[in-house]
Amino acid sequence: MHSLHLKPGEHRRISKGHLWSFSNELQSVPKDIAAGETVKLLSSDGVLIGTGFYNPNSLISFRLLSRSGELPDKAFFRKKIDEARKLRTKIYPEEETNAWRLVHGESDGLPGLVIDRFGKALVIQSYAAGMDLHLPVISEIMQELFNPEAIVIRNESLLRDLEGIPRYKDIILGDPESAMQVIHDAGIQYQADLYEGHKTGFFLDQRENRRMIRKLAKGSTVLDIFTSDGGFGLNALHGGAAHVTMSDISATALERAAANAALNNFSNCDTLEGDAFEVLQQLGREGRKFDLVILDPPSFTKSRKNLPAALKAYRKLNKLGLQLVNEGGFLATASCSRHASEEDFIRAVQQAAQPLKKHLRQIYRSSQPADHPVLLSMPETHYLKFACFYVTND
Amino acid sequence: MHSLHLKPGEHRRISKGHLWSFSNELQSVPKDIAAGETVKLLSSDGVLIGTGFYNPNSLISFRLLSRSGELPDKAFFRKKIDEARKLRTKIYPEEETNAWRLVHGESDGLPGLVIDRFGKALVIQSYAAGMDLHLPVISEIMQELFNPEAIVIRNESLLRDLEGIPRYKDIILGDPESAMQVIHDAGIQYQADLYEGHKTGFFLDQRENRRMIRKLAKGSTVLDIFTSDGGFGLNALHGGAAHVTMSDISATALERAAANAALNNFSNCDTLEGDAFEVLQQLGREGRKFDLVILDPPSFTKSRKNLPAALKAYRKLNKLGLQLVNEGGFLATASCSRHASEEDFIRAVQQAAQPLKKHLRQIYRSSQPADHPVLLSMPETHYLKFACFYVTND
Repeated sequence: MHSLHLKPGEHRRISKGHLWSFSNELQSVPKDIAAGETVKLLSSDGVLIGTGFYNPNSLISFRLLSRSGELPDKAFFRKKIDEARKLRTKIYPEEETNAWRLVHGESDGLPGLVIDRFGKALVIQSYAAGMDLHLPVISEIMQELFNPEAIVIRNESLLRDLEGIPRYKDIILGDPESAMQVIHDAGIQYQADLYEGHKTGFFLDQRENRRMIRKLAKGSTVLDIFTSDGGFGLNALHGGAAHVTMSDISATALERAAANAALNNFSNCDTLEGDAFEVLQQLGREGRKFDLVILDPPSFTKSRKNLPAALKAYRKLNKLGLQLVNEGGFLATASCSRHASEEDFIRAVQQAAQPLKKHLRQIYRSSQPADHPVLLSMPETHYLKFACFYVTND
Repeated sequence: MHSLHLKPGEHRRISKGHLWSFSNELQSVPKDIAAGETVKLLSSDGVLIGTGFYNPNSLISFRLLSRSGELPDKAFFRKKIDEARKLRTKIYPEEETNAWRLVHGESDGLPGLVIDRFGKALVIQSYAAGMDLHLPVISEIMQELFNPEAIVIRNESLLRDLEGIPRYKDIILGDPESAMQVIHDAGIQYQADLYEGHKTGFFLDQRENRRMIRKLAKGSTVLDIFTSDGGFGLNALHGGAAHVTMSDISATALERAAANAALNNFSNCDTLEGDAFEVLQQLGREGRKFDLVILDPPSFTKSRKNLPAALKAYRKLNKLGLQLVNEGGFLATASCSRHASEEDFIRAVQQAAQPLKKHLRQIYRSSQPADHPVLLSMPETHYLKFACFYVTND
């Protein structure tokens, strides 16, 4: 195994609990290390930092696996996956839900690996060259632990380009039919298409926030913008909403949302196809108002460079949304842009409210659910921001 | 009514949604304005900011009531209280709880006023000279709206010294017996002593966080430090904890906690009297471990000046707590120090974990519940920070 040395002082971040070292922090590296090879990382004065994956093609040159120097063999992956599984089964009893993120990458000590469990199927994503090499053994462990009907590989993230590894998707166990799973979460059923659906087939990370919506929705008219599979809208209906309008730019998404509403025997809902900003403006021109407006946009920026434009978009979106909220109603608003801090995002909402002379009482604020944990020593693992506001005139 | 003028530029903060102006921001003020008098506030160029309370004895010279210039008459208070009540009754149906904060001061547009509802009784606190003058009409509205058995005034906060108003408590309706109320919250009953208990008789602000604890507590051994009335410990028992130790420095608190456990027919618990830091150290020396350790200390600082000492105390407390958590167990930790930001607090927890070589996965993070809303435009209204961590070895 090759040993790489950090430049003087460059061990500090990783010693404090972070899991990455960047290419500019390493002393000269032998030319014959392959992408994804397991190496030892040492500080400039030779103290072991740990073992991890090296990738000469990535700015993230080293991803830490073990501070005690363990090798990524089957026993290692099994131990880490058991640790992650123990958390999920504690928090999510089977009667409550049969869908959760089993492994959330770095937060679960498995850099570059994401595994979602949907009913009897599993979806695996790798973002790291090193992790790619170990997908066969990880798949073996999955079969031993879960005896799944299907295992789907969704290695399609743009992050793979940064690692110099190809994008692809594959069903490595089961067939396209077994990659369709009906999942349930807190009393609502959803159809998840693990091979064709967005990302890994279904967005699990808003689970707790969707439940919060139920309380606000009772007897209310609700507008769910960026509804995707209908997650927020369906929870509003479960909570007793008078009527829910689910909106998305994608006709396919709206078909899925409507199908999910039917699957749960929810009526009192309709769908509205269109770009979020245009839909909100049009509803405003029509003088429409809602008791609860929900904004759950996709990430507005994938890079720090575009943060100012992203924050401008958050201000605009939230202003348009706020204009449609009845006096004494609620705004629920989210950001999943990793580069927008919670402070940035909340400030953007406040700035949206100011010219409208609205008094915003924050009644709920949260982050990611327990199956998408944040590694405290690694701010990069925090991406989701969500808040609900009671909206009155000033 | 007197009109006060701000110095040039000093209208900015209050125009952006804040509710206070400070003494150094005002132009010269007539000598004959009494503490608590309602005045008009204008920008330096004569634009109306709004009406509010003036207090010549406080650094917070002006507390805004109405941007449109309303006077604090009965109709005004009734409107604001109705607005606040609408939020609470929406979020907290009676079958779920009969105790909530009805008015949370500035966040509800009623600066310096706090009203808690406990079953059939109400507790009122005033922190502002101006609000003191209107307590009679507020009490009248309370009687009309709630027909309560008791109204208790708990004007004992040290903040009243900063306003130059005396500290006192009083039962203005009902008797000491009716100021004892059995309240319920999410299936647990608590005895609340509104006249003799801490603050307004019972801490409501950890309500959601206590419920979260239930999920983590099932089958677990639990240590509840700073238990007070037993709030966290009782929720752990409700969630199916194997055993709970409730600890507090106050023998009276532990009596209340034990009485509340008995009231709910919870066994599998004991109490441990002592200073939190000493108790944690002693348990450490004894080699005791728990599956879940809960730390809910009182504020470690009332001033910004003492923030570094407070953060040091948070580091020490969380390090001591973390040492007692079993591998694969949980730490739940809170801060209610207004002057410690969430970032400060979370960093202190991380710094506590680092020398212990613990991997902290944050699985839950929250702020105040909906009956203690945060006014977005006024950071001073945010005080509570709470987070849960899954604790494994690095």
